[in-house]
Amino acid sequence: MKLVTFDNGRIGVVSDGRLVDVSDLAAVVPGAWPPVGMVRFIAEFPALRPALADALRTRASVALEEVRLEAPVQWPNKVIAFPANYHAHIEEMKHGAGSGVISTYKASGQGFFLKANSSLSGPADGIVLPPLDGREIHHECELGIIVGKRGRGIAREDFRDYVFGFTCLLDMVVRGKEERVMRKSYDTFCPTGPWITTADEIADFDAISMRLLVNGEERQSASTRNLIVDIAEMLAMASAVMTLEPGDIIATGTPAGVGPVSEGDVLEIVIDGVGSMKLPVTRGTIGDHPVWNADKASLAV
Amino acid sequence: MKLVTFDNGRIGVVSDGRLVDVSDLAAVVPGAWPPVGMVRFIAEFPALRPALADALRTRASVALEEVRLEAPVQWPNKVIAFPANYHAHIEEMKHGAGSGVISTYKASGQGFFLKANSSLSGPADGIVLPPLDGREIHHECELGIIVGKRGRGIAREDFRDYVFGFTCLLDMVVRGKEERVMRKSYDTFCPTGPWITTADEIADFDAISMRLLVNGEERQSASTRNLIVDIAEMLAMASAVMTLEPGDIIATGTPAGVGPVSEGDVLEIVIDGVGSMKLPVTRGTIGDHPVWNADKASLAV
Repeated sequence: MKLVTFDNGRIGVVSDGRLVDVSDLAAVVPGAWPPVGMVRFIAEFPALRPALADALRTRASVALEEVRLEAPVQWPNKVIAFPANYHAHIEEMKHGAGSGVISTYKASGQGFFLKANSSLSGPADGIVLPPLDGREIHHECELGIIVGKRGRGIAREDFRDYVFGFTCLLDMVVRGKEERVMRKSYDTFCPTGPWITTADEIADFDAISMRLLVNGEERQSASTRNLIVDIAEMLAMASAVMTLEPGDIIATGTPAGVGPVSEGDVLEIVIDGVGSMKLPVTRGTIGDHPVWNADKASLAV
Repeated sequence: MKLVTFDNGRIGVVSDGRLVDVSDLAAVVPGAWPPVGMVRFIAEFPALRPALADALRTRASVALEEVRLEAPVQWPNKVIAFPANYHAHIEEMKHGAGSGVISTYKASGQGFFLKANSSLSGPADGIVLPPLDGREIHHECELGIIVGKRGRGIAREDFRDYVFGFTCLLDMVVRGKEERVMRKSYDTFCPTGPWITTADEIADFDAISMRLLVNGEERQSASTRNLIVDIAEMLAMASAVMTLEPGDIIATGTPAGVGPVSEGDVLEIVIDGVGSMKLPVTRGTIGDHPVWNADKASLAV
């Protein structure tokens, strides 16, 4: 099943290019703030299955082009991200793609960080680059996992019970020496979508293929087979530390091929069996601050 | 005004040791999930002022001891944290308190990171240490800012419009070489409370005094006068990058005096004019994972 958020917080099921509105099944009110409709829908999903099946059989559908798709999950408890989780990407970062300082350890020894909820954007939103002169802003193509059930201390062998589904995810980042979380949390720096594909549609979690194209040219390509910390272990590690909640998003790390994006570019992410989306890149007017131009030498501690 | 969350998501106003339930004013439903009642209450606060004044004049109150206080904000959009924001703390970290790697730059050149929403706990919850043998877990005493209004690109001179209030906050952390966000995001690693004191009760934001006692002995003491990045600039820097939302929490950084805590300790945080709370420390059974014991040398990238 493919679940979307659309038209100011409504929830829908997409099939063959058409959409059925199912917002009312979980009492999701369009326009309600904060926008936690999909979070609640996911939490209630097991109980909603009969009503959903009924709705899909009996309700009228609309063409997908008639609605505006939004970020599937807009206000989760958290967006977890695993750095340095593909060997080939670690190699390229060692050799200086962008101007970044490299991470200290592989994901298996370093753990995870977080991206801000407010960086989440959807398939119709595009990516807005902050006006930071002299800085490279890179695309990182990633598989996003959507958590389905609350859990802490999840055992490797139980991880499937907690995976609700998958989504396309871009982990945009300003290269540099500042805190990674800040460099990765600009508004629109976490495009997700176009929908959540539920886990039952994915036969083998260890063979999910993804690729990223910039202006039609392939730049990144990978399979979850090459993850250093695999999906089961990401759930185990994150839940050793934190209670995972329905709707939590896990960015699983990016493969080799990251590179700078510019105003006017179009990024296309494709994940086989999950979905695809094309995102235009524009340059905004907000986002500069003295922290980006501070004399780092004088501020070293 | 002092606002609390209590008894499974109810909202109350506290005065002279007594509490008035005002949940209904913002249609906050006790037990609703996800628990975003206070987030919505803060967003609607300006419009609620007349009804609040009326409620405080006419409604019966209960003794504060009769209710269970919870984390004031339980599911914000984000918990922002500023590292290396007091000179004296930077000095002690250089000289090896705990076993941590030190931060690279002062907050003015490094920026901010995030703590997980799921690490938020309240004045009645206590702190649960994960069973990580051989690791020091430190207390960091901080002033928490509660954002009151949505904003992006907030100018220094406008920052007061966006400060809803203040709360006591502890930024607990496992010292070590792993990602700081992971080391700071264990469940109960962000105690907050006992209430939100609205900004109108604080005469001078640049002279807020705080202290932390461990088992009755003072260990940390500071004034916001000594912040490197001050409150106005924290709002400006964070909102240059991210849209701030009502209910967002900003942990403003810790002064000197951090140190290890152990099972059985009682931590007491006192912020003059804001509030105080005592938190017992226990040791839990969940939380270890191979990432903490990984051979870092073999995982360096």
